[in-house]
Amino acid sequence: MSVLIDFSIAPMDKGESVSPYVAKAVSIIKNSRLDYQLGPMGTSIEGNWEEVMTLVTRCFEELKKECDRIYLTIKVDYRKNANGRIKGKVASVERKL
Amino acid sequence: MSVLIDFSIAPMDKGESVSPYVAKAVSIIKNSRLDYQLGPMGTSIEGNWEEVMTLVTRCFEELKKECDRIYLTIKVDYRKNANGRIKGKVASVERKL
Amino acid sequence: MSVLIDFSIAPMDKGESVSPYVAKAVSIIKNSRLDYQLGPMGTSIEGNWEEVMTLVTRCFEELKKECDRIYLTIKVDYRKNANGRIKGKVASVERKL
Amino acid sequence: MSVLIDFSIAPMDKGESVSPYVAKAVSIIKNSRLDYQLGPMGTSIEGNWEEVMTLVTRCFEELKKECDRIYLTIKVDYRKNANGRIKGKVASVERKL
Repeated sequence: MSVLIDFSIAPMDKGESVSPYVAKAVSIIKNSRLDYQLGPMGTSIEGNWEEVMTLVTRCFEELKKECDRIYLTIKVDYRKNANGRIKGKVASVERKL
Repeated sequence: MSVLIDFSIAPMDKGESVSPYVAKAVSIIKNSRLDYQLGPMGTSIEGNWEEVMTLVTRCFEELKKECDRIYLTIKVDYRKNANGRIKGKVASVERKL
Repeated sequence: MSVLIDFSIAPMDKGESVSPYVAKAVSIIKNSRLDYQLGPMGTSIEGNWEEVMTLVTRCFEELKKECDRIYLTIKVDYRKNANGRIKGKVASVERKL
Repeated sequence: MSVLIDFSIAPMDKGESVSPYVAKAVSIIKNSRLDYQLGPMGTSIEGNWEEVMTLVTRCFEELKKECDRIYLTIKVDYRKNANGRIKGKVASVERKL
């Protein structure tokens, strides 16, 4: 019973270039056991609700060590009994093009 | 050490009118002890990270009982040592108009 | 045939405090003829698609004069033949609480 | 002077499966001249503000022909004098992992 999320996080108090901080979050995601896909505007992650939210929390806690203002967005798509959607959703759209 | 979030949730499999489901989520938020403000496009909630995310989780679990597809969005604004921002942020902008 | 949007905009290169820049955007919205409602995490605006997007564009152009990196989010809810939703949506949820 | 956006759009009145409608939007994006990247939770598009917003508008107009309720989200990241970010941002993060 998984959810698929889009997750983006960045400090607002570190100036124009934020990739060193984004990399810290991506590194945590990479070292988790969840399926993920890095994108230009966010990272897609698939897992059950608790796993995914625990991962997001760990990314937030990591950035909070160094950053005084953080902005993050999460979009969640839940579909009952559906799995493998991190690949399946794009495949389903591409078949219809 | 609070965060301020914007939270919106709705089923995608219940047709055009979703307010009965939104009301279930809002009712859970209303019965929590957290400061919140209902808006036309989402609900603002202020609290510490764990409190706020637990509340979001409860709303999701409630809708999951009846809905087979759910879409939700969360925007989080964290600022170190800042509190009372659910009122304070708008006041700070209005003073500058 | 209106849309209802949630709009938030802020510079990422101006440090922790961004309300002077947010106020510039809100001032443009306030001086438009569209219905709006200021919230802690974004501004709700109602109007037809072109009006609303023109207003968002003007806010972006204003901040672009001074800011080298800008992040903005828009959530759009369109419902055919519905109007007055900036007040109506919250009222509809509250009736069901 | 380009912007990079994440764009997602779906009908809310067509039941649980929305990929036929998402495919209509993706088809319009694909036939534009803008750089894009399809993801599981949204499509990244790069171009100048007007080009990108015109494309989003065309997707919305297309779905409006058939759908009575539509939900869409846009996240915009603008950075002065930066181009090729649809590939560059991920590369910049990956170099820091």
